[in-house]
Amino acid sequence: MRVAVLGSKGKVGSTMVAAVQEADDLTLSAEVDAGDPLSLLTDSGTEVVIDFTHPDVVMDNLKFVIENGIHAVVGTTGFDDKRLGQVRSWLTAKPDVAVLIAPNFAIGAVLSMHFAKQAARFFESVEVIELHHPHKADAPSGTAARTARLIAEARKDLPPNPDATSTAMEGARGADVDGIPVHSVRLAGLVAHQEVLLGTQGETLTIRHDSLDRTSFVPGVLLAVRGVAEHPGLTVGIEPLLDLT
Amino acid sequence: MRVAVLGSKGKVGSTMVAAVQEADDLTLSAEVDAGDPLSLLTDSGTEVVIDFTHPDVVMDNLKFVIENGIHAVVGTTGFDDKRLGQVRSWLTAKPDVAVLIAPNFAIGAVLSMHFAKQAARFFESVEVIELHHPHKADAPSGTAARTARLIAEARKDLPPNPDATSTAMEGARGADVDGIPVHSVRLAGLVAHQEVLLGTQGETLTIRHDSLDRTSFVPGVLLAVRGVAEHPGLTVGIEPLLDLT
Amino acid sequence: MRVAVLGSKGKVGSTMVAAVQEADDLTLSAEVDAGDPLSLLTDSGTEVVIDFTHPDVVMDNLKFVIENGIHAVVGTTGFDDKRLGQVRSWLTAKPDVAVLIAPNFAIGAVLSMHFAKQAARFFESVEVIELHHPHKADAPSGTAARTARLIAEARKDLPPNPDATSTAMEGARGADVDGIPVHSVRLAGLVAHQEVLLGTQGETLTIRHDSLDRTSFVPGVLLAVRGVAEHPGLTVGIEPLLDLT
Amino acid sequence: MRVAVLGSKGKVGSTMVAAVQEADDLTLSAEVDAGDPLSLLTDSGTEVVIDFTHPDVVMDNLKFVIENGIHAVVGTTGFDDKRLGQVRSWLTAKPDVAVLIAPNFAIGAVLSMHFAKQAARFFESVEVIELHHPHKADAPSGTAARTARLIAEARKDLPPNPDATSTAMEGARGADVDGIPVHSVRLAGLVAHQEVLLGTQGETLTIRHDSLDRTSFVPGVLLAVRGVAEHPGLTVGIEPLLDLT
Repeated sequence: MRVAVLGSKGKVGSTMVAAVQEADDLTLSAEVDAGDPLSLLTDSGTEVVIDFTHPDVVMDNLKFVIENGIHAVVGTTGFDDKRLGQVRSWLTAKPDVAVLIAPNFAIGAVLSMHFAKQAARFFESVEVIELHHPHKADAPSGTAARTARLIAEARKDLPPNPDATSTAMEGARGADVDGIPVHSVRLAGLVAHQEVLLGTQGETLTIRHDSLDRTSFVPGVLLAVRGVAEHPGLTVGIEPLLDLT
Repeated sequence: MRVAVLGSKGKVGSTMVAAVQEADDLTLSAEVDAGDPLSLLTDSGTEVVIDFTHPDVVMDNLKFVIENGIHAVVGTTGFDDKRLGQVRSWLTAKPDVAVLIAPNFAIGAVLSMHFAKQAARFFESVEVIELHHPHKADAPSGTAARTARLIAEARKDLPPNPDATSTAMEGARGADVDGIPVHSVRLAGLVAHQEVLLGTQGETLTIRHDSLDRTSFVPGVLLAVRGVAEHPGLTVGIEPLLDLT
Repeated sequence: MRVAVLGSKGKVGSTMVAAVQEADDLTLSAEVDAGDPLSLLTDSGTEVVIDFTHPDVVMDNLKFVIENGIHAVVGTTGFDDKRLGQVRSWLTAKPDVAVLIAPNFAIGAVLSMHFAKQAARFFESVEVIELHHPHKADAPSGTAARTARLIAEARKDLPPNPDATSTAMEGARGADVDGIPVHSVRLAGLVAHQEVLLGTQGETLTIRHDSLDRTSFVPGVLLAVRGVAEHPGLTVGIEPLLDLT
Repeated sequence: MRVAVLGSKGKVGSTMVAAVQEADDLTLSAEVDAGDPLSLLTDSGTEVVIDFTHPDVVMDNLKFVIENGIHAVVGTTGFDDKRLGQVRSWLTAKPDVAVLIAPNFAIGAVLSMHFAKQAARFFESVEVIELHHPHKADAPSGTAARTARLIAEARKDLPPNPDATSTAMEGARGADVDGIPVHSVRLAGLVAHQEVLLGTQGETLTIRHDSLDRTSFVPGVLLAVRGVAEHPGLTVGIEPLLDLT
C-alpha cells in the first residue's frame, strides 16, 4: 500500500513518516509539507494519505485527495459539523473514497471509552480518575469529561450512584459530569493516565489506560491506514474500524 | 415476576432468597430444599427458578421445571456436553422455555474476559496476573487460564508477544498458557483478583477485576432472572444477556 | 503470656477472644463483659488486657488494671488530652506498667502513613486518593485527612505542588487539606482503600493500603499485646512498637 | 555551590550539565570529558564533582578529586569490594572529603526498597512483581532480585509465606528468590515498574514504583550533590542521605 504523509516535517508527521518506513506492508510514496504541491500525491501513485497538518489547510487537502480518489486518515483538529458536512458532500461524488477523521488515535484510549460505555449499565457505581503531568491547563481532561458523558448516557435509565456522604470538604467528591464524579490528579512524573472504576455488590471492575509517551497515536494511525479503504464515505473516530462486537 | 429458589437453605441459595426478597420487582414464590416436593413450584405460580443445588439433583429439577413451563437460572456445577445435550433435548418440546446455565455469575469477571478478548488483537503484548488468597490449591486459577486461552485464540493470526529475555530464573516469566504468560500471586488478605495487561507503542491498557466478597454472584443472578425469558432455549454463560456490541 | 479481653462479647472483642485462643504463644485468661467484676482479671493472673469497650467504662477499667500492675492495649475511642493526662498520672505511681492506646490497629494503615510522611520531602508533588463503600458519611475519610496533614507538615519548607490548572470544573482537583489535594471515591463493592501518590521528574511512587475485611485490626492488636510490656508508661499509636528506622 | 560534571558529553552527563544549570542554588563550574585535563576542576574552584564516566577512568578521577579536597557523587558502575577499599584508603588521608557512590539514584526506587524492608516483618505474605519493556534481557530485574533478598533477610526469623498451592503449571508461582516469589512481566509500552505486595489478615499494602522516563536519576543526583559534604568518608547508596527514621 502506497502511503503519503501531509505535514511530514511536523512533530507528529515526521513520526508517521518513520513509522510508515518501518512497516513492512506499507511504502512511503510521498512526504508533503507547507509549500509542496499536492500533485506529489497523484504523481507518486499514493493510495492513502495521513494528514496531520493545520485547520487552515486541511480542507484544501481533503478536497484534492477526494477528487483524486485517494483515501485519507486525518488527525488534524478543528472539525465542526459544518466542516464534516462539507467533507460528506465531496464524498457523495466519489462513493468509493474513504475518509477517516479522528480526535484520538490511541487505541487504548478508544477501547477504554468503549468498554466503559458497555460496562456502565451493569454496576451500581461508576467514577472516573484521570491523572496527568502538572503542566496541564484544564481539569478534568477532555477525554475524561467525554468518557463520563458516555457513561452517563449509558446509565440514563438507572438510578444514580449511591452516595451517603453527608459531611464533605469542598471538592472531595470530585467534579460532577452528568452525575458521574470525575477526579483530576496532577503529579510531576506522570504523562496521561485514566481509570474508570465500576462497582457493585462484592466486586469492582477497573479499566485503566496509561499513555507513557507521545507516540501512542502511531499504532492507531497505522491500523486506520490499513483499514480505511474498507469503510468508504466519512468515518469519525477509529472505533468503527475495530470491529468490536 | 414470581421467583423460587431451589437449594434455598444452602450458602448461595439462602443469599439468593434474601436478594429476591429485597428486590422490588421480584416476588419470592417458593423456597425449596432437599426433601421438599417440586410441586411447591407449580402450586406457587413460579415463573423463574434459581437453582444452586447439587449435580445429583439438578437434572431432575430441570426436567420438572421445563415440563411445567418454568424458566431456570442455574449455577449448579457439573454440566458436561452430555448433560447440556439432554437439557437441549427437553427444551425442544417446550420452545418457549428458557434455561440459562452459567459457571460464573460475577458480571465483572464476565465483562473482564469479554473486554480482554476484544482488546487482545490491538496490542503487541498481553499478559495476565491473577492474585488470590493463599488457601487456593491451583495456579493459575481456572478463570485466568480460560482468559489466557480466549486471548490466545483472538491473537492466533498475530505474531507472539515480543520478549528479549535471554537470562531468566526459572518461573520468572510465569506460566505459558497458549503463548500468554500468566502470573499467580498468593497473598494473605486477598480474595480473588485478576489483571489483564495489554501494551503497545507508548500505551498500555489494564483490565482489572476484584472480587471482594463471596456475594459477588448476586447481581449477575438477578440480571439473569430478569432477562432469561427473552432468551428461550438453552444459554450457557451470562454473556449473551449483556447485549454487548 | 496470659491475656484477658474486656468487652469480650462485643463485635471486636469477640473477634479478639478467638484470635487470642488461636495464638500458640498466648493464653486467654479471662473474658470480661458488662456486669462482670474486674476481679476476674486479678483472679486469673492476667498479664495484659485488651480493651475494646466503651468511653463510659474504659477509664474505670484502666484505673483498675494500672493499680493491679496489668498492662493494657486499648482500642476504645474517646481519648482526649484530659483523659490521656489522667492515664499518665495513674502510670506515674506504677512506672513498670505499660498502656498502649491506638486509634487504628491496622498495621498496613499505620505503615502507609509512616512511609508517606518519610517520602513526602523527596517529591515535587503529592496527592491522596481514598476509596470507600458508598455508605460512608464523611469525605475525605479521617485517615486520609490525617495522612494529608502529616504529608503537609513534612513538606512545610518545600514549594507547593506544581499545578498549571487554569480552567477547572468545581471539585475536579479534589479537597485541599493543608495544600495536599485529597480525592474521595465512593463505590459499591469497595471496603476501605487509600493511595498516596508521589511524583518527581521521570518517576512516581505509590503507597496503597487496602482493608478488605473488618478484621484487619487483629494482627496489630496481637503485635501490641506481645510488645506492650517493653514500652512502660503511656504510648499512643502502634507506630513506636514497630521499631521503624 | 560550584559543581563540575565529569563525562559531560555522555548521555547521563549532559543531562546532569543541564540540570545543574537549571538549579538556582548550584553553579556549573566545569564540564570535563575524555581528553580534558582534570586541572579544569581545581582551576574552576569546583566543590563537588558528578562522575558518570567509565570504569576505566573513574578511579583516576577519584584519586585526583580526593587529593584536591573535592567531594564526589559517582554513578559510574564497576565498583567491587577492592575498588571501594582503595577509595576508603585514599579518604583516610583526607578525612573531610566525602565520596558517595550509588548504583541507583532514582529516589523512588531507593525508598521503595527501604519501605519494603521495613514493612516485610509485619505481613504474613510478601511477593514482588516487576514490569519492564520487552527489550530487557534478564528476568527478574536486578532491582527486583535485590529487593526480594532484602525482604527475605528482614523475614529470616518469620515463617515462610503461606501457600496451599498443590497443582501448579510450571512458572505460575514465579521465580523463588530466597523464598520470595518474584514475577516478571515484559510488555510493549512499559518502561520500568515494580510492585511489592504485602498481605496479612484483612489487609494488604502495596508499594509501587514507576520509572516513566530515563531522567529519573536527576533529582537523586542533585540531592546527593547538595548533601554529600555532610557525610565525609565513603558512602554507598543514597539511602543514608535521606535521613529516614
